[in-house]
Amino acid sequence: MEAIMIYMPIALALLGLLYMIVKQSWVMKQDAGDGKMKEISDHIYEGALAFLNAEYKLLAFFVLIVSVLLAIVAHFVETTSYLIVIAFIFGAIFSAFAGNIGMKIATKTNVRTTQAARTSLPNALKISFGGGTVMGLGVAGLAVLGLTGFFIIFFQLFMDGAWTNTMDMTIVLETLAGFSLGAESIALFARVGGGIYTKAADVGADLVGKVEAGIPEDDPRNPATIADNVGDNVGDVAGMGADLFGSYVATVLAAMVLGNYVIKDMGGNIVSEGFGGIGPVLLPMAIAGAGIIISVIGTMLVKIKSNNAKEAQVMGALNIGNWTSIALVALSCFGLVTWMLPETMQMNFFGEGMQNISSMRVFYATLVGLFVGAVISSVTEYYTGLGKKPILNIVQQSSTGAGTNIIAGLATGMISTFPSVLLFAGAIWASYAFAGFYGVALAASAMMATTAMQLAIDAFGPISDNAGGIAEMSEQDPIVRERTDILDSVGNTTAATGKGFAIASAALTSLALFAAYVTFTGIDGINIFKAPVLAMLFVGGMVPVVFSALAMNAVGKAAMEMVEEVRRQFREIPGIMEGTGKPEYDKCVAISTQASLKEMMLPGLLTIGFPILIAFVPLLFGMEPRAIAEMLGGYMAGVTVSGVLWAIFQNNAGGAWDNAKKSFEAGVMINGEMTYKGSDAHKAAVTGDTVGDPFKDTSGPSMNILIKLTCLIGLVIAPILGGHTAETGAVATENVEITADFAAKKVYVDFIIESNEYAKAIISVSSIIDDRVSTEELVISGTKAEVDAKIAELKSKSSQFKMDVTDNRTEK
Amino acid sequence: MEAIMIYMPIALALLGLLYMIVKQSWVMKQDAGDGKMKEISDHIYEGALAFLNAEYKLLAFFVLIVSVLLAIVAHFVETTSYLIVIAFIFGAIFSAFAGNIGMKIATKTNVRTTQAARTSLPNALKISFGGGTVMGLGVAGLAVLGLTGFFIIFFQLFMDGAWTNTMDMTIVLETLAGFSLGAESIALFARVGGGIYTKAADVGADLVGKVEAGIPEDDPRNPATIADNVGDNVGDVAGMGADLFGSYVATVLAAMVLGNYVIKDMGGNIVSEGFGGIGPVLLPMAIAGAGIIISVIGTMLVKIKSNNAKEAQVMGALNIGNWTSIALVALSCFGLVTWMLPETMQMNFFGEGMQNISSMRVFYATLVGLFVGAVISSVTEYYTGLGKKPILNIVQQSSTGAGTNIIAGLATGMISTFPSVLLFAGAIWASYAFAGFYGVALAASAMMATTAMQLAIDAFGPISDNAGGIAEMSEQDPIVRERTDILDSVGNTTAATGKGFAIASAALTSLALFAAYVTFTGIDGINIFKAPVLAMLFVGGMVPVVFSALAMNAVGKAAMEMVEEVRRQFREIPGIMEGTGKPEYDKCVAISTQASLKEMMLPGLLTIGFPILIAFVPLLFGMEPRAIAEMLGGYMAGVTVSGVLWAIFQNNAGGAWDNAKKSFEAGVMINGEMTYKGSDAHKAAVTGDTVGDPFKDTSGPSMNILIKLTCLIGLVIAPILGGHTAETGAVATENVEITADFAAKKVYVDFIIESNEYAKAIISVSSIIDDRVSTEELVISGTKAEVDAKIAELKSKSSQFKMDVTDNRTEK
Repeated sequence: MEAIMIYMPIALALLGLLYMIVKQSWVMKQDAGDGKMKEISDHIYEGALAFLNAEYKLLAFFVLIVSVLLAIVAHFVETTSYLIVIAFIFGAIFSAFAGNIGMKIATKTNVRTTQAARTSLPNALKISFGGGTVMGLGVAGLAVLGLTGFFIIFFQLFMDGAWTNTMDMTIVLETLAGFSLGAESIALFARVGGGIYTKAADVGADLVGKVEAGIPEDDPRNPATIADNVGDNVGDVAGMGADLFGSYVATVLAAMVLGNYVIKDMGGNIVSEGFGGIGPVLLPMAIAGAGIIISVIGTMLVKIKSNNAKEAQVMGALNIGNWTSIALVALSCFGLVTWMLPETMQMNFFGEGMQNISSMRVFYATLVGLFVGAVISSVTEYYTGLGKKPILNIVQQSSTGAGTNIIAGLATGMISTFPSVLLFAGAIWASYAFAGFYGVALAASAMMATTAMQLAIDAFGPISDNAGGIAEMSEQDPIVRERTDILDSVGNTTAATGKGFAIASAALTSLALFAAYVTFTGIDGINIFKAPVLAMLFVGGMVPVVFSALAMNAVGKAAMEMVEEVRRQFREIPGIMEGTGKPEYDKCVAISTQASLKEMMLPGLLTIGFPILIAFVPLLFGMEPRAIAEMLGGYMAGVTVSGVLWAIFQNNAGGAWDNAKKSFEAGVMINGEMTYKGSDAHKAAVTGDTVGDPFKDTSGPSMNILIKLTCLIGLVIAPILGGHTAETGAVATENVEITADFAAKKVYVDFIIESNEYAKAIISVSSIIDDRVSTEELVISGTKAEVDAKIAELKSKSSQFKMDVTDNRTEK
Repeated sequence: MEAIMIYMPIALALLGLLYMIVKQSWVMKQDAGDGKMKEISDHIYEGALAFLNAEYKLLAFFVLIVSVLLAIVAHFVETTSYLIVIAFIFGAIFSAFAGNIGMKIATKTNVRTTQAARTSLPNALKISFGGGTVMGLGVAGLAVLGLTGFFIIFFQLFMDGAWTNTMDMTIVLETLAGFSLGAESIALFARVGGGIYTKAADVGADLVGKVEAGIPEDDPRNPATIADNVGDNVGDVAGMGADLFGSYVATVLAAMVLGNYVIKDMGGNIVSEGFGGIGPVLLPMAIAGAGIIISVIGTMLVKIKSNNAKEAQVMGALNIGNWTSIALVALSCFGLVTWMLPETMQMNFFGEGMQNISSMRVFYATLVGLFVGAVISSVTEYYTGLGKKPILNIVQQSSTGAGTNIIAGLATGMISTFPSVLLFAGAIWASYAFAGFYGVALAASAMMATTAMQLAIDAFGPISDNAGGIAEMSEQDPIVRERTDILDSVGNTTAATGKGFAIASAALTSLALFAAYVTFTGIDGINIFKAPVLAMLFVGGMVPVVFSALAMNAVGKAAMEMVEEVRRQFREIPGIMEGTGKPEYDKCVAISTQASLKEMMLPGLLTIGFPILIAFVPLLFGMEPRAIAEMLGGYMAGVTVSGVLWAIFQNNAGGAWDNAKKSFEAGVMINGEMTYKGSDAHKAAVTGDTVGDPFKDTSGPSMNILIKLTCLIGLVIAPILGGHTAETGAVATENVEITADFAAKKVYVDFIIESNEYAKAIISVSSIIDDRVSTEELVISGTKAEVDAKIAELKSKSSQFKMDVTDNRTEK
């Protein structure tokens, strides 16, 4: 049983994908409605495909460049395999394919939901949520399939499918990082490009259509209306999918890296513990695999019976599915952790030394992750939910004008960082206290295990939104729109909480990657009491702020191009306002597509360029690689801390403005008077929403990608800055050998001094446990004095244990 | 000559204060104008005094509480002297007194400026700038007087006025930190309270007066108009003064702490180098003293001759004074550094070991500081200046409504962090590369040396603004207002650049304090690869965001109270609109005063409470003090990085909105059409300015106080978390003695093991240099293994130097 555990996650992933195909063909078999509906739906589908195709062209170019760069790195860095290029390309392809599946099903499900809504609400929910399920399982299934598939391949190639030592496993995982980098790169395009697309189309459609021409939203006479509906899919479906695909892969990868580190701390060999000695590395994949099946079960529970159901019942159905999934993940974590991990592990806590950690403590860490995933949604819901105090306050402040509305919205977003950050900080602390950074990474893994379910809940929103748009454009009976509106309204809430989940996952993923980075570089930690590291912490903190500004400006520019085009069509196409002339939808789609991809270049360059500059410019000037590694670590920490703050701030401020505006639709009480749409207060609230739109749909969600991609680039660069560079540029080499013979352990030290500035010692410790010899290699690097001191520490430890040390050290 | 250098700064400070008194009496002798003008001016003066008195009452209470807390600390921590309480009280009193001087002279100078403007512009400048000069010299003179005075006293008390060792000097400086804490606490009240006051009064006056009642700004019929004018003094004069007073003291203190650390690195005794062996400690004070005299010279150069001068000439006159000061500071730094510092120093760079640093490199570090001070003003000027690209862009975006205006303003503020942060990061790196953290602290000291000049330039703005208000209220000839408007317009520019200077000073001061903190606690650095430290970095990053939101909300609440009161007076006082009924100005002043002091409690509590909680809660739970010290350090770094970012973002966004709005006064070209006040675009720009007001005058500038006070509280707590706690709670004590006898050095080691988790070694190294015996004490603390390793490193170093080591280590 244990031996085949390595294939378990892949089997579960395939099972999930199989279910996805079944569900997909079920959705596709549903009635797609009459001519007009189908026509509109086809427009949206084609627009979405047009964006995907344009994106893929650009992507192919990008993937080519990065592949060449990676190949160059592989050429110069001995321990980096060329296979990282393959992994990278497949990571990109898998992510793109997952996005493709999601986008296709979403644009096919929308019209079927409209059609179903003509008969009943339960049917409409069944179909829209079915579409979401396909999307969710596609993303999660492909993520697990790709990651575990490549792991098995590399494990065979580099280690012949059996445990050798932690060094070899490190190379396996370093190569696997290419897959994650590929996935996250696509997420950059999908999330940032998609975010710009959706808002440019939205603003363009509203500004000329609603404001200038005075026609309602989703009116088929508006040339930008198709682009607007495509945008919902591009931004909310494909963007979110790519984001979570990236998080999923990166989290599991980081947990695997840290699992390998646990094995290192335990002496470099735990074959006797079963699972081929790679239990801690396999565990995150197993949790991910289990999560897929659990999500399938969860999605099956989402159903309503009454045709007269309201938002609360629909929300309730989703909650049952969601909470069941979370509870089942907790259960399966308990089973997998106790089964796959050694009962007691040794983990090295920086500054606190080696500690014994029971597997139960790892389980507690996973509970921390599940807790955070659940609570962050409530926090988001509180700050952005209709009828809650913060929203009522913004509504109140709208009565004195747009200025006070804006201040109130900004303040709400800012204050919402308080509980969110305390929650994250508490989670970091707790999961670390339970099981070190392995605990942090597993907390993230457990949280991400329900990704398929989360995505299903998340994707059904924009599908319902689209369904409503199609109902409007094809002039259906009002009851149809009413039914889709119920779904849409619930979708708005789940969109907000989904964003909370995405931030939480990005934050924990980044931390796990950050920890994995430190272990890859072999540095002792990141000391911000070194000025260059502190300087980079500042620079890192600045990048999310500038990135957000660029993204916001990009929306403005792209929207302006759209406005010009819509104005031109209204002017030049005869009979367009009377419904006799046909608007050129495809031109608007093309503008959104081109503008969004063009405008995402600069923020993308910022994201990718900075870490590369920080790593390579000092390297060219001959700076010591370990010092650079620390600087880059400082930069990564700066980006993560600032990025999480700005993500929460922007998402919640944007969400709050949006719902403050929506509050006016049902009417709100201001200073004792009922106030409705069209009032001055409502106009002020609309202004707030205009500011909030790019916040919550473009710059805010982009922060997730920024922080994850930054940490991933760091992780891929890590081996270049790590111990591996020691092979090059040695000034002088001198070998010092220490043979220590205490109890059942033999210690050999190769002490290589390359200069007074840089030395390293390769320490081989052979242990005889249960009549088996296991050897662990430990590399210590630093200045000569530092390495000297470390070796002395090693000796001092052995004397603590009352063992005899024979110091045969000779200097040559 | 060298012996009396310790009294030099105090003498220069007294000289500066003497000049201030001369200038003050000259200003007071000027004609204060006729009855109406004098009446209005008296109202403003009394309103300002009312605020000060209310503030002082609250302060006395606050100072009492903190004094008791400090006394408790002094009682329990053996090495903390009760004198820290005295230093704290005097720090508070000196800062309050400096604020009092500034506020009094500002409110007396305004009316004299109006009167002088009736005759000529050069006279008006002479008087308004004269008032600014009094303010600047009062702040700088009292700062240097208090700090150096207390240093001399503590130096006598703890060291008998002669060098003993670095440990004693550390106690001197730890006690002196009380003075700085007192000063910065007042700054919290003055800057945050003042910031809330000025905007509450401004918004209240505008909302009811201009918008509802339709009367012009500064109209005497508006009951809030006096409060509004008081606000200019409270916020821009007293607030800025207290801010820079705090920065000045903190910077010099931090540089002294790091100077002592240099002496430690050099073997603990440099008496042979002259200046009683405290050259590196004296130097920052000497630079500050020289800066006062240089500022006096600089202010003398500010004058114009032509009565027809425009903004450019006035700005030119200020620039001549400013640049001359900066050049003279550079010259004096060169002189003082080469004179007072040893030609070559040894400094310990973390992770890089001991390096020889020439005194010239310290001079280069001071140049870095002067460069940053000059360039940051240009950066601020670019992003907020009239006619510059960012402002023109915001103006352009105003044409499509308030929403796009807001987005453009936010984006401008966000993007402005890019050059600013790169500048700071470069400065940190460069000054550290030149001379370690001592270099960073001296860069800050050099920049701050021109504080008196900066404040003079800064304070003349609000004085001129007030003068214009008095001209309006007392219905003077239009030429008077035209002249004061020229001064006011220049004042707006200097206010923006002054804010840049204040941020830069706060940022560098915090870094210097941060470095001093690490040396006080005796930790090795702050490793963010420990989860609790990383968690605190997150929490620290969040605090400035929440603080800003609280400050913004506070303005809203206080403004609402003001609105109610003004509405009540308009309603209830008969004949008020006809000018026959007299408005109750004092009631509005009282509301602003009470509301601002009440509303600043929560952000103040956040600032003070968090570091105390982080330090003491884990201490109560028995956490290891060094681990807490690192966590607190992570928190400080988080607050500093995030605080600097939010300060730049908010100040520049606010300044940009303000000037975008002002652009409409002269008319702007939008889409080929000249657009003026009253247009829709202008209304959108006014909305932007409403949002920007609390940004630039309340929450933005408060960030400076937040980051400095956080680092200062850390510094005061440091000794509690540092090596000193070793005296208490020892589990077991075991002495290991090493006697090493190599060359002319003798090394004795007292090895105290308190537990396996905590040990420390006190290493005394006696050197015989030039027939003099000097002894340095070095404390190493950490886990037993870590201390062991450090001692081994010491031995390994001695073997590197080819000396014989006799290891007589015996374990008891």
